[in-house]
Amino acid sequence: MPRSRPAPIQLVIVGSVGLDTVETPAVRRAEALGGSASYACAAASFFTRTGMVGVVGSDFGKGYLDIYRGFGFDLAGLQVREGRTFRWSGVYEENMDNRRTLATELNVFAEFMPELPENYRQAPFLFLANIAPALQLRVLDQMRKPRFVVADTMDLWINTALADLKKVIRRVDLLTLNESEARHLTGERMLIKAARKLLGWGPRHILIKKGEHGAVLFSKRGTFLMPAYPLEEVKDPTGAGDTFAGGFIGQLAAGGKVTEEALRLAMLVGSVIASFNVEAFSLDRLRKLTRREFNARVAEFKNMLRI
Amino acid sequence: MPRSRPAPIQLVIVGSVGLDTVETPAVRRAEALGGSASYACAAASFFTRTGMVGVVGSDFGKGYLDIYRGFGFDLAGLQVREGRTFRWSGVYEENMDNRRTLATELNVFAEFMPELPENYRQAPFLFLANIAPALQLRVLDQMRKPRFVVADTMDLWINTALADLKKVIRRVDLLTLNESEARHLTGERMLIKAARKLLGWGPRHILIKKGEHGAVLFSKRGTFLMPAYPLEEVKDPTGAGDTFAGGFIGQLAAGGKVTEEALRLAMLVGSVIASFNVEAFSLDRLRKLTRREFNARVAEFKNMLRI
Repeated sequence: MPRSRPAPIQLVIVGSVGLDTVETPAVRRAEALGGSASYACAAASFFTRTGMVGVVGSDFGKGYLDIYRGFGFDLAGLQVREGRTFRWSGVYEENMDNRRTLATELNVFAEFMPELPENYRQAPFLFLANIAPALQLRVLDQMRKPRFVVADTMDLWINTALADLKKVIRRVDLLTLNESEARHLTGERMLIKAARKLLGWGPRHILIKKGEHGAVLFSKRGTFLMPAYPLEEVKDPTGAGDTFAGGFIGQLAAGGKVTEEALRLAMLVGSVIASFNVEAFSLDRLRKLTRREFNARVAEFKNMLRI
Repeated sequence: MPRSRPAPIQLVIVGSVGLDTVETPAVRRAEALGGSASYACAAASFFTRTGMVGVVGSDFGKGYLDIYRGFGFDLAGLQVREGRTFRWSGVYEENMDNRRTLATELNVFAEFMPELPENYRQAPFLFLANIAPALQLRVLDQMRKPRFVVADTMDLWINTALADLKKVIRRVDLLTLNESEARHLTGERMLIKAARKLLGWGPRHILIKKGEHGAVLFSKRGTFLMPAYPLEEVKDPTGAGDTFAGGFIGQLAAGGKVTEEALRLAMLVGSVIASFNVEAFSLDRLRKLTRREFNARVAEFKNMLRI
């Protein structure tokens, strides 16, 4: 489903596209648009011209595509394969801290072979959202010479594809992962030690996500501590990390520079986008988000962080 | 044990004094100087002229008093009663997140009746560290007209002395408590809702401590989010909250003003003092702490928070 647009792609995002059935203590929502690429592209497209790389099945309805088109990101890299779209279902427990996966149906995602359109390959920014490290490597191989590459991962790949994951880590500028994943991957309880070990494996930056406790950016030259925006209510935490990372790299790509200041501002922007996302299911909140609401929360949040 | 000193007392701290036996996964330390007043006074005395109000038994050795004298806070409010000093023992589990109390011997602390020396009563700053709310009220009644009063509490008092605790909350400027205690006391999971409810009970400020995730100051006019200084190692978390609060109010008392800016800087100062304290058992690290080390960490920490 290629679309022609004049402006060059500044940011390529590869990840999963799926239909999520999510239960929270309050509500159940079936077959909502989800997946790491959906959340990350939706967030990034607020800031920069973004191209999505992923796969859906022939059952992927026009309604879902219309949601993507509403965000305005490029879909030339989204493959449509005969079969069913990836599906995931899970339940969040009482305090929203823990989620249990009820079912995972890989469907067409099982055979996913990312293939980048020609005009994606020269993009300066690349986000390898959470998919198998072997696929992340395949995408890296297709890129010309990206200026800044971010990779996300998850426990599953630490357990099942560690060698490939380490190859990915060696080739990216920034690795992002959850607090518990950082501990699991390094065997270090204290985050600063975990980050130092990970920095030794190659990346110039390690971005550790701590959910409602914020995020920390560890770089060879320093550390940036970022609390989370304090929310009144979390309706659905699904996609928080992906919208955070998508907003982060989208903001970086929009600015074009990767200085320490740009990275810090991008973390603030990513936090704000993620804080909106969890206020509703699926991409519902981001679909309605206005520039005015976003700017107001950025200003409010900056004030909460000022010493 | 009165000491005469010329400068007026700027800050009065009332709390427990005890001998702690602490086990961590690595080490066991028996009968180390502890208690909320010990930690808070040690921290506060880096910044301002502080008077301690507490009780010890006739077994309280000269070695412990020498440690207090090394910090230079005033001991005119420390009573010595016939009998044994309060003792507490506890064990920290593998990741230092949870601690289990093994034994509590109240001893002379069971009959504690705080009695403020005359020259304490006009102090402008007061910290009611964690003791029974009835005793906190008794101290409040003895003060002339303190400019700024901070109270701490704990789950035990929420469970056993809620009516008195609510009386304390109505009479203080700032209530500080742990994240879990704030949830317990208000029945609200989201901290912003818990804080709003607590602000409705009287105080102008609610300071919620989140341990390794930092602290948040909620005021009627705004919110300040404060991450924790990222430590390489935590040897003993005992007293972290008390040193944080002691450093916080000590810094406020030293500045003399209670503006939003002063409160934010005081939170940073409290965090830094607490970060040193957990690097060793008991007051060991604070005893050795130099102004130079403190200043260097304040500068480093400020840089980690700068957007």
